[in-house]
Amino acid sequence: MDQDLLSKIAEEIKKMVDVKKNSSTNENRERVDDVMAGMSSITEYVGVAIGDTVGLVIANLDLHLHEKMGLDPKYRSIGIISARTGAGPQIYAADEAVKATNTEIVSIELARDTKGGAGHGCIIIFAAEDVSDARRAVEVTLKELDRTFGDVYACDAGHIELQYTARASLALEKAFNAPLGKAFGIIVGAPAAVGLLMADTAMKTANVDIVTYSSPDKGTAHSNEIIISITGDSGAVRQSVISAREIGLAVLKSMGQNPISVTKPQI
Amino acid sequence: MDQDLLSKIAEEIKKMVDVKKNSSTNENRERVDDVMAGMSSITEYVGVAIGDTVGLVIANLDLHLHEKMGLDPKYRSIGIISARTGAGPQIYAADEAVKATNTEIVSIELARDTKGGAGHGCIIIFAAEDVSDARRAVEVTLKELDRTFGDVYACDAGHIELQYTARASLALEKAFNAPLGKAFGIIVGAPAAVGLLMADTAMKTANVDIVTYSSPDKGTAHSNEIIISITGDSGAVRQSVISAREIGLAVLKSMGQNPISVTKPQI
Amino acid sequence: MDQDLLSKIAEEIKKMVDVKKNSSTNENRERVDDVMAGMSSITEYVGVAIGDTVGLVIANLDLHLHEKMGLDPKYRSIGIISARTGAGPQIYAADEAVKATNTEIVSIELARDTKGGAGHGCIIIFAAEDVSDARRAVEVTLKELDRTFGDVYACDAGHIELQYTARASLALEKAFNAPLGKAFGIIVGAPAAVGLLMADTAMKTANVDIVTYSSPDKGTAHSNEIIISITGDSGAVRQSVISAREIGLAVLKSMGQNPISVTKPQI
Repeated sequence: MDQDLLSKIAEEIKKMVDVKKNSSTNENRERVDDVMAGMSSITEYVGVAIGDTVGLVIANLDLHLHEKMGLDPKYRSIGIISARTGAGPQIYAADEAVKATNTEIVSIELARDTKGGAGHGCIIIFAAEDVSDARRAVEVTLKELDRTFGDVYACDAGHIELQYTARASLALEKAFNAPLGKAFGIIVGAPAAVGLLMADTAMKTANVDIVTYSSPDKGTAHSNEIIISITGDSGAVRQSVISAREIGLAVLKSMGQNPISVTKPQI
Repeated sequence: MDQDLLSKIAEEIKKMVDVKKNSSTNENRERVDDVMAGMSSITEYVGVAIGDTVGLVIANLDLHLHEKMGLDPKYRSIGIISARTGAGPQIYAADEAVKATNTEIVSIELARDTKGGAGHGCIIIFAAEDVSDARRAVEVTLKELDRTFGDVYACDAGHIELQYTARASLALEKAFNAPLGKAFGIIVGAPAAVGLLMADTAMKTANVDIVTYSSPDKGTAHSNEIIISITGDSGAVRQSVISAREIGLAVLKSMGQNPISVTKPQI
Repeated sequence: MDQDLLSKIAEEIKKMVDVKKNSSTNENRERVDDVMAGMSSITEYVGVAIGDTVGLVIANLDLHLHEKMGLDPKYRSIGIISARTGAGPQIYAADEAVKATNTEIVSIELARDTKGGAGHGCIIIFAAEDVSDARRAVEVTLKELDRTFGDVYACDAGHIELQYTARASLALEKAFNAPLGKAFGIIVGAPAAVGLLMADTAMKTANVDIVTYSSPDKGTAHSNEIIISITGDSGAVRQSVISAREIGLAVLKSMGQNPISVTKPQI
């Protein structure tokens, strides 16, 4: 009798553990296998990174598509960064890529995404005369994402995000109208009130200038965020961003949340 | 041997139960602890409520941020209500708050949110000359939410929402162009067709006037809802809202769903 | 002692299994029961289908609501298709319905939905002079959905969708400006980069004309998709759609995903 029950128990547990496995180890194994299989077969595929970010290149974009997209005809090769989760991390990573390569940023679009979260996904298009340049830009961007996701702290009720660079380049100019070559930070909080309090704190911390202010109705894809971007002296921008992070984390904790970075804080 | 298996079973179960606990009891305990910790540390924090609603105050909003937001310069103190889930409940709660306090509603924005659901989140900003008034408005709003969530019925396929007041005030005027001091109701259904049928039923039930009609393309943040607001004699508005609720619940049930209120029906 | 532990184990497992059951078998049973209960009680209810699609009819739409919606006054009966997940499948299904019935398509709206996925939900309104025509259109649409969902392949990171018809009718004209009576296909990929690569491949495969290009910022409800529609010779359109499908599946697989159709591929 006990033996019978024991067997049933063992069986039930096995089933449940199998389900668990299925959604972790096995999935990862399949993932690796598939990646291997996939990478060999498509020349356009460059790689994946955090946030369901995919990097692709198209060596010679179809002429009619090119025109319909409103791209400058001089560029035929494009590199593409596209993600379900995140816009800031990808834009800041692309900013490093555009500094390091012979490419231009032709388009940055934000989608309302994050897979049920409160924020954005994005698609960023690099253009180049040579496909190897486009590929290199995509590679650099993908590699930078671990760093630029460092100050994204997510929890069930929302998230905060901080980005900082000492020297803004073309991606930040395109996305936020950042002054080229100057220190530039963004401050993001969700739900939106969190972003507003962070923005207020940032502005009061040091002598910085506000460049953009976005909210659910204006400048976002109706995400549940308030986002400001700031510029100024590099020390001031950095200090403002850090203060915003501290108050943002404190509010989310006050809400009973435990916001955590999936990579490693950097700023 | 049995003993061994038994130990393994016990261990497996312990792990699984721990996971379960983590996402329920422990979480709540931590929540309470953190709330305690948080409340003491940030003066701007007022409280949380249903729908991941957070209430904050800023005593003296930064001047440059104030200007960028396009707020009336006469108000320096703001109160903020911000939520991942819900807009109607927060707006109706804020309507009571604005009646009860010396504040103005300066902004109501809807985000496409509800954490993967079909509807909205929101951010509502009260302005006051004195921060204690702003705080009071936020407190009243948070307290009213249990009531205003009473006729929100959610299920996997969608949701319906009903709101009713005998006397609309400034929050409803701001959000829906409600005539001040008159009975005012809103009727919401998702997926959108459910809202449309509810709207039709409401209009046929009693002699009410339709004030606004919103759909995924117009008047919403592309949520999957149809929303109408109605005004008229208080008895008529209330009766229309109730009929809309009955047909809305019936359709969701016909779809095989079990729509339920997380608090307590009020209308 | 062992017996005690055993009992506790059995109890814990029972609880966990009950939870599991609740979210599968029982739910389905309730679903069926509720559907039975619901169908008998509301005359407006027509049926449900894949994608949380619901079909409703309103025999005599309220005059004031009718006007507020901006509908042509000559039609009083409407049929409604509304879904949490999908827009392409419902539009192509509605296109068959409008060919088969004496109805018009008066409105197609896209919501940002798919329940946390990257795409759209939708609401489609048929108008008819007679409610039986409206009902028939809704019935045909619901029935076609199994087929039109055939080339929707979803996975955790995104999805691709292909639609093809040899002869476009009024729903496709309304939604995509499709030339009436000609072969017409749509190509959708998420995250957006996937759609762009699919679009490029489609355009290079055969001699087809691009009709619309939509992206997160333009022509979508800020979904994380790039969508093109194409027309031309029926063989060419079909071939382009198939090539787009192959490259779309390959990219998602390269990302370590396993995109699958929930019904049966058709094209």
